[in-house]
Amino acid sequence: MDYKRDLRESILPFWLKNAMDYKNGGIFTQLDEKGVIYGREKSVWFQGRALWTFSKAYNLIDPDPEYLKAAEAIYSFLPKCTDADGRMYFTVTEDGRELQKRRYYFSETFAAIGCAEYYKATGNREALMAAEKYFDVAYECYTGVRQTQPKINPENAPLKALSPVMIMLSTAQTMRSICKENQSKYNRIASVCLDEILHGGFLTERGLLESVSTDGETVDSPTGRIVNPGHSLEAAWFILLEGILSHNEKAISAGKRIIDITLPMGWDEKNGGILAFRDINGQPPVQLEWDMKLWWPQCEAMIALRLAHLLFDEKTYAAKYEALKQYCKTHFVDAQNGEWYGYLHYDNTPSTTLKGNIFKGPFHIPRLYMIMSVLDEDGCIERYAQ
Amino acid sequence: MDYKRDLRESILPFWLKNAMDYKNGGIFTQLDEKGVIYGREKSVWFQGRALWTFSKAYNLIDPDPEYLKAAEAIYSFLPKCTDADGRMYFTVTEDGRELQKRRYYFSETFAAIGCAEYYKATGNREALMAAEKYFDVAYECYTGVRQTQPKINPENAPLKALSPVMIMLSTAQTMRSICKENQSKYNRIASVCLDEILHGGFLTERGLLESVSTDGETVDSPTGRIVNPGHSLEAAWFILLEGILSHNEKAISAGKRIIDITLPMGWDEKNGGILAFRDINGQPPVQLEWDMKLWWPQCEAMIALRLAHLLFDEKTYAAKYEALKQYCKTHFVDAQNGEWYGYLHYDNTPSTTLKGNIFKGPFHIPRLYMIMSVLDEDGCIERYAQ
Repeated sequence: MDYKRDLRESILPFWLKNAMDYKNGGIFTQLDEKGVIYGREKSVWFQGRALWTFSKAYNLIDPDPEYLKAAEAIYSFLPKCTDADGRMYFTVTEDGRELQKRRYYFSETFAAIGCAEYYKATGNREALMAAEKYFDVAYECYTGVRQTQPKINPENAPLKALSPVMIMLSTAQTMRSICKENQSKYNRIASVCLDEILHGGFLTERGLLESVSTDGETVDSPTGRIVNPGHSLEAAWFILLEGILSHNEKAISAGKRIIDITLPMGWDEKNGGILAFRDINGQPPVQLEWDMKLWWPQCEAMIALRLAHLLFDEKTYAAKYEALKQYCKTHFVDAQNGEWYGYLHYDNTPSTTLKGNIFKGPFHIPRLYMIMSVLDEDGCIERYAQ
Repeated sequence: MDYKRDLRESILPFWLKNAMDYKNGGIFTQLDEKGVIYGREKSVWFQGRALWTFSKAYNLIDPDPEYLKAAEAIYSFLPKCTDADGRMYFTVTEDGRELQKRRYYFSETFAAIGCAEYYKATGNREALMAAEKYFDVAYECYTGVRQTQPKINPENAPLKALSPVMIMLSTAQTMRSICKENQSKYNRIASVCLDEILHGGFLTERGLLESVSTDGETVDSPTGRIVNPGHSLEAAWFILLEGILSHNEKAISAGKRIIDITLPMGWDEKNGGILAFRDINGQPPVQLEWDMKLWWPQCEAMIALRLAHLLFDEKTYAAKYEALKQYCKTHFVDAQNGEWYGYLHYDNTPSTTLKGNIFKGPFHIPRLYMIMSVLDEDGCIERYAQ
């Protein structure tokens, strides 16, 4: 794969050509194999994520005015995705009326990085302020200053989850690189999140757990035993990046350790690819898609393996990276119509031919291609993270 | 399959032996291939459903004291699954403390039929009162007298769903057969629900839709285009049963019509079995499990086909019933350890070996086996429905 060429000629054009809504603003993501829209409900996650993707591509890869035009259309749609309390919806109608508002605050974190990168592309101070506001709302939810309705009664199942910590780390990393006036704030938050991932109980000898008790103990339940290998490997490269940027050798070792414990359980020895879920005791995962191959864990694993190969002189990382790259090229990439398929059966046949839905849009794949473009050119992840 | 023998020697013993909690009361459902408990969180759906199953088996198949003992243990656990407002939880801890409370009221409908059948087994008037109370709570949610938080903003996506209507019809049928003092009430509700399924917009030429607009129009969206063939065929046999019991020829024709439009889209021509989801336009269903074979749609399809075969002199129903019975025997039944697997890949290999989870426990399979026991003996569904 020629990442830079494919990003510019296949991946980004697939969305630019088929998904943009220049009438209402925003972007559609429910696109079929050929890019035809099969659903007009909009994912709020993907307003922020696509804003980030087009702005980042403009800043890092190619100052193509079409990227900026798309970013502008999405940026203009964000106020409609935002409720009066500053929190965002999860889905909206094509013209931006609320469909679903959830307890989670991923919409806000993605809007924060989208606005930040858009500010970098345009110098628009209003976008910078929006980025900081969305970040603060998300962080208030994360710390509990803003209370969100818990899904499970916390008195009777006092659990904490990995995903909010991971996303706050990654979001703080992006904010730090752009919002220069508040660097110490984002540095501190990144540091706190890093510490929580490494010392909050999630990191065990058998895997980086998705959920542990609020006091950091492993819980022997289906939820407590679950590892999401794609998440683990994504966290690993966030941590490696943090180690590189903050010259923290311990973080770099921890990131390596996470890769080393995740690969044996996450890699499908029989058919290849990274599995969706594993139970650390080998008991049946309750997620029906547990043995499917989803697109995004492959992307995150490729980044983790490539970074590990650059940092550590171990052939196994290069070999696994090459194997996974070949696997994705063979099974996920749709060279004819552009983009990747999203969901393969256990045996690598496509389970569905859709290219996008509420959870799949222009994010993990363009991020992979952008990082790989940079690493293939000079091996300098700092240039990506600026 | 010898349904009556298998019910008594394989299906019910699997749960009686492995799942009963005689310490706290109630039943576990998270059981692995061999019946080992892998999760101790309890499904409230399955407290009501298993109470129904063991009581019904006691009343209809065999007055085995072990069935009654299990039913008693589950009945005694129901108050712990019930919140102060009369609504039930979705999941609880093994000792009956709230984990999750949801907007849906299926827990209440299952508790209603469980308590009703338990009353029939024991003559315990308190159980009859509990049955009527749970029914009333569910029906108040159904009619909107009790407001539950909608998932999607109804102003911007005014949709109504098939599943609450189906479940209220089936629940009213059971209540009517047992709560003799309120037969006219349950008759009226069954009649209203039947009318809503047949004339509320769900029944189209292309399938029985899972969701339509509140004014009964087909909505061209992923949600609006979805058919769940297992649901459709389950609704079909509820409707056939209602037609038989109320001597309603139009209902019988409508039940037949639903089977006839559902089978061509629901049957997997290549690998056999009933698929989990289809989009009526052939666009990609967004449900990841769309092409998996779940256990319960096969059960509901077998009942619908067997009833259709008895009612209508068409060889195709008998042929499809026999094919599906053989399919289930080959791919779902675990003759060695008892019970059925629950989830097969598209190609009929097991996706997981678990025998139970929050959604799979002793209900669809024992119900199938009980109905088939009756039909194989005398072809008289009225005897099952008494």
